[in-house]
Amino acid sequence: MKGAAYMGGGRLQTVSVDVAPPGPGELQIAVAYCGLCGTDLHIVHGDMEARVRTPLVFGHEVSGTVAAVGAGVQGWKAGDPLTVMPLVWDGTCPACLAGHQHICQNLVFLGIDSPGGLQLRWNVPAAIAVPIPSDLDLRTAALVEPVAVAVHDVRRSDLQVGDHAVVLGGGPIGVLIAGVARDAGAHVMVAEVDVSRRSRIAGLGIKVIDPSSADMVAEVERWTDGVGADVVFEVSGAAAAARSTTALAKVRGTIVVVAIHSAARELDLQRLFWRELRLLGARVYQRSDFDRAVELLRRGRIPAEAVISGVVPLEETASAINDLSAGRAMKILVDVAGEAQA
Amino acid sequence: MKGAAYMGGGRLQTVSVDVAPPGPGELQIAVAYCGLCGTDLHIVHGDMEARVRTPLVFGHEVSGTVAAVGAGVQGWKAGDPLTVMPLVWDGTCPACLAGHQHICQNLVFLGIDSPGGLQLRWNVPAAIAVPIPSDLDLRTAALVEPVAVAVHDVRRSDLQVGDHAVVLGGGPIGVLIAGVARDAGAHVMVAEVDVSRRSRIAGLGIKVIDPSSADMVAEVERWTDGVGADVVFEVSGAAAAARSTTALAKVRGTIVVVAIHSAARELDLQRLFWRELRLLGARVYQRSDFDRAVELLRRGRIPAEAVISGVVPLEETASAINDLSAGRAMKILVDVAGEAQA
Repeated sequence: MKGAAYMGGGRLQTVSVDVAPPGPGELQIAVAYCGLCGTDLHIVHGDMEARVRTPLVFGHEVSGTVAAVGAGVQGWKAGDPLTVMPLVWDGTCPACLAGHQHICQNLVFLGIDSPGGLQLRWNVPAAIAVPIPSDLDLRTAALVEPVAVAVHDVRRSDLQVGDHAVVLGGGPIGVLIAGVARDAGAHVMVAEVDVSRRSRIAGLGIKVIDPSSADMVAEVERWTDGVGADVVFEVSGAAAAARSTTALAKVRGTIVVVAIHSAARELDLQRLFWRELRLLGARVYQRSDFDRAVELLRRGRIPAEAVISGVVPLEETASAINDLSAGRAMKILVDVAGEAQA
Repeated sequence: MKGAAYMGGGRLQTVSVDVAPPGPGELQIAVAYCGLCGTDLHIVHGDMEARVRTPLVFGHEVSGTVAAVGAGVQGWKAGDPLTVMPLVWDGTCPACLAGHQHICQNLVFLGIDSPGGLQLRWNVPAAIAVPIPSDLDLRTAALVEPVAVAVHDVRRSDLQVGDHAVVLGGGPIGVLIAGVARDAGAHVMVAEVDVSRRSRIAGLGIKVIDPSSADMVAEVERWTDGVGADVVFEVSGAAAAARSTTALAKVRGTIVVVAIHSAARELDLQRLFWRELRLLGARVYQRSDFDRAVELLRRGRIPAEAVISGVVPLEETASAINDLSAGRAMKILVDVAGEAQA
């Protein structure tokens, strides 16, 4: 059956994939949708050649239904809608032994370190399958994985009702963090340089600002009556944004580093010391984040349609990647099963 | 009566100070000892001209006895031994309102922002006086303030019994953090470039390493069976040390920034993200840290004599500052009352 594979050398191709039956403890998924994310762009741009083994069927933001049930799997039957938490941990490293399986020191990330969801049939361990309730459509359910990222980031920040949260970067993850934080009762401000993204965010009723023209520190001071932000989420990956975080946070405030920063970044450690700030790394998610993400999407608490900027058939994955790389799109879903009217 | 004052322009002088009686709510202290610290060096080197008003009687690591009791002060009588938590907060700023009075946004630090302890008589608010038990001598009690810094740093790190803590920098605060962490049941390793400091630390039975010749990451990996450090204290103020912290900490480990970093520092935010690290600023102390410091010194749990490298009369404050600046000393106490045999 067909799939989209990264062939190495920056090349992406629609390929024919042999379908094996699900192994013991596995489910075979009939993939419906698979969202494309920043990591997929890095793969296809050739930034991760040392990590990936090609040809790689990538993709890890999946919704679908159970196509077949492997030996020994309980609680699932053909046709059940589901998504996948695409992490496999070894269970024996120091991180796992301390209860941090999601950042296992030998983590296998499905769709990066092993085959992913851009194929019609995908076999995954049943232990990481997450049920989708009947009142959540599969198109929206393709957002569960990125929403789980946002839930994890917000949970890690210890955000409280009534807090002021600044989100630096208004791409898909930034907007989802803003949505999760707003649902949690926070006042939210997003900083985003792209004008079309700003208008999309403003359309959600979320306060948005252009950090390239506004005085962010003064804006945040005014917005918080001189207190500073309770939480700052760094989602942009930009050096200047990272540098600005310590100036935006209140005394004892929290900064969460969500973005991938490919180079070392300058930080004002004097300010971090002076205000006793807290800077936290936050990566992927835990099972409770997935469950919460399902619930938030089911209850319509997340601006899913504002994040999904397009749906394309599997054969157009390459052009979707190009659009995302050029900043012409927010989140594009690949209609793997070919059933949607794009 | 005499005192030691910073006159501005890098000049220090023994001066005659007018003695006023203690105001309402104040205690007048007959100062016994006053320790010299890194901040005092910064003052005398002229690094803080914009902040200090000269002439400034500086010094904030004080022990002494009550000389006179101001109107309305309860619970104190002449002769009572005491030390001072040298912080005055406004009680109304956002930090104070949130319970973080010790890092008040308008904090007055005694000995920097107002007169300090390098004088025979010092009037301070009774609210920040801390009693010294009869079985703690005044010489050792001059260390309560820096020990309170160390207690605060360790408390902020959430260090647990059995944890592995790396202390980057083996000056007075680094050694005191090592002592407090060891007393709390942690395994401790100190990294220090100066050979004489290293031998002093080794003499305390604390593991010590030269970061300029050793492979710190490999050493910490070996020491922790591949796990990484639970807590890393950055006490050196060096750019390279700050840069190294993220490589030394375990998954979900904690880095505490104790040192003052005068310039922005490069940090590996990718590693912080990848391992979900936590970077905390820790500044001064709270009252409970002072009380704990008194108790630790009283019970002999802190290597006080290894930290005190000399005691000088008030008139030799300038040469003591020179010795400290040249790295020829650890902690020098000024015998303000002139009673000790130096």
